[in-house]
Amino acid sequence: MFRGLSAFPITPADADGRVDVEALQRLVKRLVDAKVDSIGLLGSTGSYPYLSRAERRRAIEAAAAIAKGKSPILVGSGAMRTDEAVALARDAEEAGADALLLAPVSYTPLTDREVFTHFETVAAAVKLPVCIYNNPGTTHFTFSAGLVARLSRIANIVAVKNPAPDAGHVFAQLEDLRARVGRDFSLGFSGDWKVTETLIAGADAWYSVVGGLFPEPCMAIVRAVREGKPADARKLNADLQPLWDLFIAHSSLRVVYAAANALGIVKAAPPRPILPLEPDAERQVREVVERLRLR
Amino acid sequence: MFRGLSAFPITPADADGRVDVEALQRLVKRLVDAKVDSIGLLGSTGSYPYLSRAERRRAIEAAAAIAKGKSPILVGSGAMRTDEAVALARDAEEAGADALLLAPVSYTPLTDREVFTHFETVAAAVKLPVCIYNNPGTTHFTFSAGLVARLSRIANIVAVKNPAPDAGHVFAQLEDLRARVGRDFSLGFSGDWKVTETLIAGADAWYSVVGGLFPEPCMAIVRAVREGKPADARKLNADLQPLWDLFIAHSSLRVVYAAANALGIVKAAPPRPILPLEPDAERQVREVVERLRLR
Repeated sequence: MFRGLSAFPITPADADGRVDVEALQRLVKRLVDAKVDSIGLLGSTGSYPYLSRAERRRAIEAAAAIAKGKSPILVGSGAMRTDEAVALARDAEEAGADALLLAPVSYTPLTDREVFTHFETVAAAVKLPVCIYNNPGTTHFTFSAGLVARLSRIANIVAVKNPAPDAGHVFAQLEDLRARVGRDFSLGFSGDWKVTETLIAGADAWYSVVGGLFPEPCMAIVRAVREGKPADARKLNADLQPLWDLFIAHSSLRVVYAAANALGIVKAAPPRPILPLEPDAERQVREVVERLRLR
Repeated sequence: MFRGLSAFPITPADADGRVDVEALQRLVKRLVDAKVDSIGLLGSTGSYPYLSRAERRRAIEAAAAIAKGKSPILVGSGAMRTDEAVALARDAEEAGADALLLAPVSYTPLTDREVFTHFETVAAAVKLPVCIYNNPGTTHFTFSAGLVARLSRIANIVAVKNPAPDAGHVFAQLEDLRARVGRDFSLGFSGDWKVTETLIAGADAWYSVVGGLFPEPCMAIVRAVREGKPADARKLNADLQPLWDLFIAHSSLRVVYAAANALGIVKAAPPRPILPLEPDAERQVREVVERLRLR
């Protein structure tokens, strides 16, 4: 399950935060049809911290109805309070999740000891496997390799999603982590434009924003790496550079919303205070989607 | 209202996040008795993002029952979603708040345009004056002087709480801000151990963590500055250095929880995942509280 492409769709919702389950199911069906290795539901791209507990459950049930038995579903169950994260983890387990993604959502900066206890408590509340969601760009907490290693000794904590390092640091980070965790512990990365190099270097999984909307070009990269064709993978990744440039300039979340709306797959804005892109940037997204023949 | 000492109490609550209103009222009474210039309820020290809407309202009503007509109450109404922040702002207005503190709580990093729109929307929903709560340490959003200036043109946005700069930068920051905002716009600071210098330099307000538990030594500093005795103010601030050292080592939030418990004023832990200090650090807090004769 923590191998290959994990595709992270947005969670289309109205201005009041009510999930548009039909639009979500359309997105999930695209991923199932593309045979992604897993679906990262209610991740950062799925704006989980902006949705109520009830809506998060509705989203899981809607996605499971489409994907169950086809693509495993990883579900983000992070929350500001530990008891909330426990409740959300249990909800996810009941509603059909195959695994959890757990980020240390915080307002008050947390210590390593606090994050360890938080993860220990949430993991103990469920039977599902748990992936450590190391996302310093949103949580402002950074997992050291040592903390990942300590957490990896908890039986059902079986994977980590790290931000992809710059090309020059990929091997060193992977080697360091491999030496600290068990052989079966999955090492995966996010940060779409940098992930191809981590896969070529032997990473287990790609947690992908673009893959949540356009799974095909991502699956092509994953397949090229699997077939031992790194040059092909790099070429396919380079082909997507105009999209990466937009991700870097405007954030991947805002860009995939614009792309999904431009293609008519959804009609939804990100949750406020996040705003849709301004018209100029939106036009750039439409142009790139057309130029790259993404659909 | 946005002048002098604004004292920020913790919000004692049980493990399920239910506010202990009697303990909160004991804390508020200490502040009223010390004649603080205002009370910063449900600030970062009051762990507002960890409390439900209903509990936040209960806390405001309990505090207002003690402080109304004596010390004005500023209430933190930040939330992850704009519509939630609007609802919380209206709740606060109804429940007896005299002003709002608004921080751009975020998970997805926000742009200046998004924060401006968020503040504009929340401010328009209430008649209360609003203080911009610039707290990069928790929100990871930093207000530029230019953004503060733009927001200051909204009629009921009347104050900013900035993190206190290092001593060498105080005058320059105050001068730059003064030149950009109206004469009546209040410039205040948090970061207890650095604030005395900002008051001496002419800042309007001190948003204080320690003042929420021990208002007397803070009021003494504020009075010394008001009476034109900067050397006395600096001496009083230096006397508190053992406490500042603990704040820097363990965070002011965790230290005031330990101090309030040590003195028997409350019996409460911070909201999980935040943990109480470990025994060693707790003992240091007790020793410093005794040595400085804080009570």
